[in-house]
Amino acid sequence: SAPVTLAVIPGDGIGPEVTAEALKVLEVASPVTFESTRYDLGAERYLATGEVLPDSVLAEIREHDAILLGAVGGKPNDPNLPPGILERGLLLRLRFELDHYVNLRPSRLFPGSVSPLAEHVLERGDIDFVVVREGTEGPYTGNGGALRVGTPAEIATEVSVNTAYGVERVIRDAYARAEKRPRKKLTLVHKTNVLTNAGSLWWRLFEQVGAEHPDVTTDYIHIDAAMIFMATDPARFDVIVTDNLFGDIVTDLAAAITGGIGLAASGNVNPDRTAPSMFEPVHGSAPDIAGQEKADPTAAILSGALLLDHLGHADAAAAIEAAVLADLAERAPGTSRRTSEVGDAIAARL
Amino acid sequence: SAPVTLAVIPGDGIGPEVTAEALKVLEVASPVTFESTRYDLGAERYLATGEVLPDSVLAEIREHDAILLGAVGGKPNDPNLPPGILERGLLLRLRFELDHYVNLRPSRLFPGSVSPLAEHVLERGDIDFVVVREGTEGPYTGNGGALRVGTPAEIATEVSVNTAYGVERVIRDAYARAEKRPRKKLTLVHKTNVLTNAGSLWWRLFEQVGAEHPDVTTDYIHIDAAMIFMATDPARFDVIVTDNLFGDIVTDLAAAITGGIGLAASGNVNPDRTAPSMFEPVHGSAPDIAGQEKADPTAAILSGALLLDHLGHADAAAAIEAAVLADLAERAPGTSRRTSEVGDAIAARL
Ligand SMILES: CC(C)[C@H](C(=O)O)[C@@H](O)C(=O)O
Ligand SMILES: CC(C)[C@H](C(=O)O)[C@@H](O)C(=O)O
Repeated sequence: SAPVTLAVIPGDGIGPEVTAEALKVLEVASPVTFESTRYDLGAERYLATGEVLPDSVLAEIREHDAILLGAVGGKPNDPNLPPGILERGLLLRLRFELDHYVNLRPSRLFPGSVSPLAEHVLERGDIDFVVVREGTEGPYTGNGGALRVGTPAEIATEVSVNTAYGVERVIRDAYARAEKRPRKKLTLVHKTNVLTNAGSLWWRLFEQVGAEHPDVTTDYIHIDAAMIFMATDPARFDVIVTDNLFGDIVTDLAAAITGGIGLAASGNVNPDRTAPSMFEPVHGSAPDIAGQEKADPTAAILSGALLLDHLGHADAAAAIEAAVLADLAERAPGTSRRTSEVGDAIAARL
Repeated sequence: SAPVTLAVIPGDGIGPEVTAEALKVLEVASPVTFESTRYDLGAERYLATGEVLPDSVLAEIREHDAILLGAVGGKPNDPNLPPGILERGLLLRLRFELDHYVNLRPSRLFPGSVSPLAEHVLERGDIDFVVVREGTEGPYTGNGGALRVGTPAEIATEVSVNTAYGVERVIRDAYARAEKRPRKKLTLVHKTNVLTNAGSLWWRLFEQVGAEHPDVTTDYIHIDAAMIFMATDPARFDVIVTDNLFGDIVTDLAAAITGGIGLAASGNVNPDRTAPSMFEPVHGSAPDIAGQEKADPTAAILSGALLLDHLGHADAAAAIEAAVLADLAERAPGTSRRTSEVGDAIAARL
């Protein structure tokens, strides 16, 4: 069969290191061959050329079957990197332009990984849930502005935009995912008691679409209460659906309680397949440890598994997951391996 | 000296029970006498009369020296209680009308209370920080709206409003509080890389006001990274300043990791004293356990201590805290006392 085309955006910092390992594992695990094209985008390119994501590059990327991204971002507080320039101009632009409305973030406490939660919390049950975070709306649209900037009369606004179109489709996706899981449970997380306009839309569509899925158990919790449950009873969650900003917040906490963002994978999925989906670790570019082979490539490797799954190779995806699991279970606590050693070890199991 | 006038809003569910204990302890601890007026506001009143907060009642409340609030809110999903009606109409209306721009939420892991965090996290240091949450702006203003409600073309917006006026004053308050603490450390939590308009305003004022406080160490973290630090290294925090919504989220997580919202106190403070400040436990009305004397009144009692402190009685406030500490240290794990027994025990120590 024709090779699968991959647009690879290694990015900055530890991005290239972890992406190399993800590709290494993908190549071993995949039943299809990949044809990768590398796109140098990120802080380095911006600082060198002033370019963030040229339209022509976006057009090329769009022609691929999928995108693998490492991490993007320069040194913290680099005065030459205006805040948000890469986030808004590159990462979010890709998510928005390619209509990645399902930002998929599985959370699982893998055997062998160390949770910051106490034994009495972990005893309540296995942590194994997935967050379906809306990816193209909410407070992430860049709507809003500022007036009289730099004066005592400055006013700055951020507008959370929520449409029935956008909310319904992500809720539908979440119900479909919940339906395929053994527990079939879906939790809506929002702040309906304060954000009443958006909250009412989310709540109504959650109920309406729910009526078509009588086999899915549902509940609703406010974002603040979700914090408490994440810390005290994360086993209660199965599938969570939430908006773009709440999803950002919840998934970092979810990553923390399941052993850290070194393990958290994500997919920016376009379920309608009108454009390529993009897979990336949740962690950032960690410039402080870049180039030292200290980064854990596991999250990038697991993001590769999500990519395979999205392309229809569920078995190969499961094989990567199993290899990661086995590797994690055998990691000797207190020791650390080089980035490429971790990739080699996982690839060797496949 | 003239008695201090208190407007007492016991509210719904467990609100009246915990408020009674807070008043019991306040009366024993306070160097001044209180003259309390009780205002029946909340779900019950709304369901009985359709009234949330009549202007005349607000005018009366405004004339008091301080407000003590229990908890407000009816049964979950009561069809007769539109979402947000009490939150927007009562709680937030009080915070906004009385200009409670500093929502003060101390977090401390008291000896004897059980954190959901593992020993290896707790070993990193004592958890003892305070969140200064902005209380009158951000996504809480009720700005925004909805169009074509109930149709597939519905659009709903929520506008986060941030003014130099509002942001600067809360940042000034936070620096002043940081300066009085031994560690003198202030952390700004925001999402400047995505919410660039509001983020730039917060960041600039944080830097500007910081220049006047060279003795305060500062840092900045994104709200998502704050989640990770809360779960893995909460001892790093001293004072946190953040916006209304991020503050809501961070403080519930903070309450969870320090033993639960049964212990979390808060003050809605008007530092300029142009109107009475309001003190309330962070927890809700918990209608499921109401009237059974099961609620832990500790958060309400500690809110009373914040009230005394605000009124200038720092010693009496410290005495309540010490009594609570002693009580917590002696709570036998696994046993439970009635609400009034806890109040009696703490009062007896004073
Ligand atoms: C880098 C940032 C724009 C991004 C987000 O907020 O979505 C990141 O935190 C994430 O979760 O992928
Ligand atoms: C009840 C609700 C409006 C309130 C808030 O969001 O501020 C509560 O969660 C709190 O933290 O005091």
